[in-house]
Amino acid sequence: MDPRSRTLKGFGVSPGIAIGKAFLVDARHIPIPFYTLSTDEQVARECARFEEAVTEVERDLETIKQSIHPDLKEQVHILEAHQLILRDRLLYDQTLDLIRRERLNALWALKRSLNKITEIFQSMEDEYVRNRVTDVSSVGERIMNRLAGRKANAFDEIRERVIIVAQDISPADAAQIQLEKTLGFITDMGGRTSHTSIMAGALGIPAIVGAEQATRTIRTGDLLILDGSSGTVVVNPTEEQIGDYYELQDALETYLKEISRKAHLPACTLDGHKINVEANIELLEEVVAAKDHGAEAVGLYRTEFSYMNRRLPPTEEDLYNEYRELAELMAPLPVTMRTLDLGAEKMGRWHPGIEQQNPALGLRAIRLCLHHVDLFKVQLRAILRASAATRNIRLMFPLISGVGELQRSKAILEEVKSELRREGRDFDDKMSVGVMIEVPSAVAVADMLAEEADFFSIGTNDLIQYTLAIDRVNEHVAHLFDPLHPAVLRLIRQVVSTAHKAGIPVTVCGEMAGEPLYVPMLLGLELDSLSMNPQAIPRVKNLLRRAQLSDCRRFVAEALTMRTAAEIREALQDMVLRVFPEEFKFFDPEALQPKYRSSEPYV
Amino acid sequence: MDPRSRTLKGFGVSPGIAIGKAFLVDARHIPIPFYTLSTDEQVARECARFEEAVTEVERDLETIKQSIHPDLKEQVHILEAHQLILRDRLLYDQTLDLIRRERLNALWALKRSLNKITEIFQSMEDEYVRNRVTDVSSVGERIMNRLAGRKANAFDEIRERVIIVAQDISPADAAQIQLEKTLGFITDMGGRTSHTSIMAGALGIPAIVGAEQATRTIRTGDLLILDGSSGTVVVNPTEEQIGDYYELQDALETYLKEISRKAHLPACTLDGHKINVEANIELLEEVVAAKDHGAEAVGLYRTEFSYMNRRLPPTEEDLYNEYRELAELMAPLPVTMRTLDLGAEKMGRWHPGIEQQNPALGLRAIRLCLHHVDLFKVQLRAILRASAATRNIRLMFPLISGVGELQRSKAILEEVKSELRREGRDFDDKMSVGVMIEVPSAVAVADMLAEEADFFSIGTNDLIQYTLAIDRVNEHVAHLFDPLHPAVLRLIRQVVSTAHKAGIPVTVCGEMAGEPLYVPMLLGLELDSLSMNPQAIPRVKNLLRRAQLSDCRRFVAEALTMRTAAEIREALQDMVLRVFPEEFKFFDPEALQPKYRSSEPYV
Repeated sequence: MDPRSRTLKGFGVSPGIAIGKAFLVDARHIPIPFYTLSTDEQVARECARFEEAVTEVERDLETIKQSIHPDLKEQVHILEAHQLILRDRLLYDQTLDLIRRERLNALWALKRSLNKITEIFQSMEDEYVRNRVTDVSSVGERIMNRLAGRKANAFDEIRERVIIVAQDISPADAAQIQLEKTLGFITDMGGRTSHTSIMAGALGIPAIVGAEQATRTIRTGDLLILDGSSGTVVVNPTEEQIGDYYELQDALETYLKEISRKAHLPACTLDGHKINVEANIELLEEVVAAKDHGAEAVGLYRTEFSYMNRRLPPTEEDLYNEYRELAELMAPLPVTMRTLDLGAEKMGRWHPGIEQQNPALGLRAIRLCLHHVDLFKVQLRAILRASAATRNIRLMFPLISGVGELQRSKAILEEVKSELRREGRDFDDKMSVGVMIEVPSAVAVADMLAEEADFFSIGTNDLIQYTLAIDRVNEHVAHLFDPLHPAVLRLIRQVVSTAHKAGIPVTVCGEMAGEPLYVPMLLGLELDSLSMNPQAIPRVKNLLRRAQLSDCRRFVAEALTMRTAAEIREALQDMVLRVFPEEFKFFDPEALQPKYRSSEPYV
Repeated sequence: MDPRSRTLKGFGVSPGIAIGKAFLVDARHIPIPFYTLSTDEQVARECARFEEAVTEVERDLETIKQSIHPDLKEQVHILEAHQLILRDRLLYDQTLDLIRRERLNALWALKRSLNKITEIFQSMEDEYVRNRVTDVSSVGERIMNRLAGRKANAFDEIRERVIIVAQDISPADAAQIQLEKTLGFITDMGGRTSHTSIMAGALGIPAIVGAEQATRTIRTGDLLILDGSSGTVVVNPTEEQIGDYYELQDALETYLKEISRKAHLPACTLDGHKINVEANIELLEEVVAAKDHGAEAVGLYRTEFSYMNRRLPPTEEDLYNEYRELAELMAPLPVTMRTLDLGAEKMGRWHPGIEQQNPALGLRAIRLCLHHVDLFKVQLRAILRASAATRNIRLMFPLISGVGELQRSKAILEEVKSELRREGRDFDDKMSVGVMIEVPSAVAVADMLAEEADFFSIGTNDLIQYTLAIDRVNEHVAHLFDPLHPAVLRLIRQVVSTAHKAGIPVTVCGEMAGEPLYVPMLLGLELDSLSMNPQAIPRVKNLLRRAQLSDCRRFVAEALTMRTAAEIREALQDMVLRVFPEEFKFFDPEALQPKYRSSEPYV
């Protein structure tokens, strides 16, 4: 056995197996000189040099956009966002200002601006938004490369089919990856919601992110096995390992083709129980992926995107056009719109940001909307108007903590309806109004909420966060965030049984819904629908089709007597390996664990 | 009626009524010159000037300490803390460093150091700790006064008996107040846990803090009525108002004397049900107040003080001596020790601070202890050893989220017991071990926790915070923090009924327990004990003695059918005014509301 043989673990973000040689993309640390400019002439020259670099990058991005791989068409908006970032006030104006005012050289001035922007991003609560800093870094790096006279594309050096290993791969980099040269990729950084992950999924290339030691352990030319399902990298494997993986690779391909083919069929359990499988999306462009993967509805449309990174808030017309197009694209399938779920600290530049010590417990989501009723009404008007033609829109309010908040939100909705009626505008008067159950108090008063709601949607990410008092993006406690904590299961069961008593359906739309390990549990907990990232749908549907509701119910009854998450996890892993041997052959049910690395599994 | 007559509202932090002339203490804004020093000689002179000012303030504080009012003897430790702050590295060394390195004048250098320290304090999660920044400001202001050649004591100017009105009153200022000249005080700033509040309580002077407009509205010489019970200030009252208040003042004094006299009697309801009334304290010095006010136990001993503001963590001997003295002072009454409940961001200087985005959902309390087992064991050893002699110590773990954490905490306790046994050291082997219920998940699995705990103690502050996902110190959402939210009442009821089924008692030790309005509610919810600030005990005992358990139970049953906090609050206010007319004559039950100012009462 090769003494350099070893195994690394990361997050498998795009399933599939790749076997091939590693190609390390240089971290490309650019040495940044520091000097001050003594004459006005030098200042003018440095400003010109910076402007020129920005223009060149603009041109590069345009070229990439034009030549983009056909499978990536829907990602063009990212490149367009990057073009906008280039001229962003914080980046562009600030750098020029630093050159002029502090007489700094362009590279150093740009570095300072980037640091400032990174700080702003890092102070943001939401993991998704925080990850967006990589877009800015990527743009900044391109300008730096230009300023330093470097070649823009590191991938040009690639001469054979390789597995790319990098600290991070920016969206623009990924857009240049030539599929015919790439077997997969592995990065040190990034999480499940990073662009790298999203694009790898879209490209169908196996990928692992967050394999922290990858660039330090792997050398260009090392033979790698990349298992994008379990998040495993085998560096310099044995002959036997290679043989095993080739076999697995064949079987996996057969399996993936099969579940894709069946993705459009409904998800009925073996004992005839139908579960709705729906998609969580946030961009119009994702509707195609949702439908392709067999979504039976949009279970969660996140409406935040249009509010972020803007100089002015979106107008009613902007929103109306977006929502109407969405409704039309999905019709006759339903679309569930969640009203604005932003924290006050991350609204666009049009809103004065506020400092919050614990933003997760602060002014956000429905609280923010009830605080800025004008803003809220604009969105409600747009949603109602968009509901007119296809009548397939459902509405839900996030972060509702009790009946008072729900009543007030519904009262505002009624006001808006009256306004529209007065104006003679059409809307779907029977539009369903649901409540997101994600605050523990909402569980405690679910019976009262059910009387005033048409459906519930459990946002497990937040519900678990508040129930366990764990910020899952805090690395010091993330290992304590566990969807299988006995308290979490009890609360979900309580919500479902309360809702069913009141005759309303319940969806789970947190990440939990898309994780195969949890699917039998959620089925046994009697959820009516599961809503998830489109890519997860074929596997979940396939699992549901192989499941017996009665078995899962029995399992849940047993799990609910267990006292720790660890005990429940072990029982669940045993069960899925026993009951769904085919489904979990390719997807290690333990692979879920490393996502929240557990140093002390005492939850 | 005087056209300048008006009413202000603040937090009544020390009950009692004062009628007299206002005396405005100047905000004493010192204009701070900025200049840089050009010669080494100037630098040396500026350093000497700063050192001299510090020495003078040191001497001033020593003088104050010696001449301190007899009723304030127990507060000497604050002045001693101030003497230590004078030589604190961040204040003293940093200022000298700024003078030397950046050649700044002393006043400006000091100002910079103070800003830095203020920033550090403001980043702290806990309201109590954050309020401690006033200690540093107060010390800094004294040095500034000295550097600027000002007189140190603003109170010297006072010539008659007055109501002092100030932006803020520092503890050292308060220590100089001459009782014979002071009828009460009113400040713009400060909260219920500020030193101003604590000292006013200790001095028995009526006081209102947080009356934001006070120094802008009131002029020296204005006639004031200060109602420290309801938090009301009447500026330039009418003859009639004055007459009414004099009457109220007489009645209040009679009432306060009576409840004080009866504070040592047990709190039995009219229908013969006994409730334990206990004290929350954090300093040995508070034992006297606890016993004087009739506490039947220490229901919560906060052990954080010994860990904060230290260069090194406390040794086992330090803690042992503190805990043993506490146990001896209270014996035979029980003392309930809560193990360390610090957030990782506010441990002493001996611990590398960590950045946390949402510290309330981060590494803190039991999580931190299970992460730093060595630290935890030192405290457990000290507690166990302290339990040996008087056998009146009970132990409880904060922030327990489930059975796994409790089991692990108890396993560490058992390890420590074995170590002590091996060393031949004595301890109370039958020491009760309880669990704080303050995470929503703990409520959901209370039945499982009850099997492994000797008692529960509900920390309502945190429980409400997590249940409603509201950070109560965030001004933008604090009005949504409501102990009467239907979900909160249901969770408390669930904890109590689960505990009683398992045969273990339940205490409430959050702020809720000391607020008279909530007492009938907590009684009806069948709590076994209430633990509160010592000053609150006489009133709460008196209320309990006038209550019927059966009535309160009926009221709770009715309240639990109500759908909003607003509805419950109204019903409760009506009820207490009807059932306890004597008790609420002096304490406006609506005065609780402004604590969490509600702009939109929709919870």
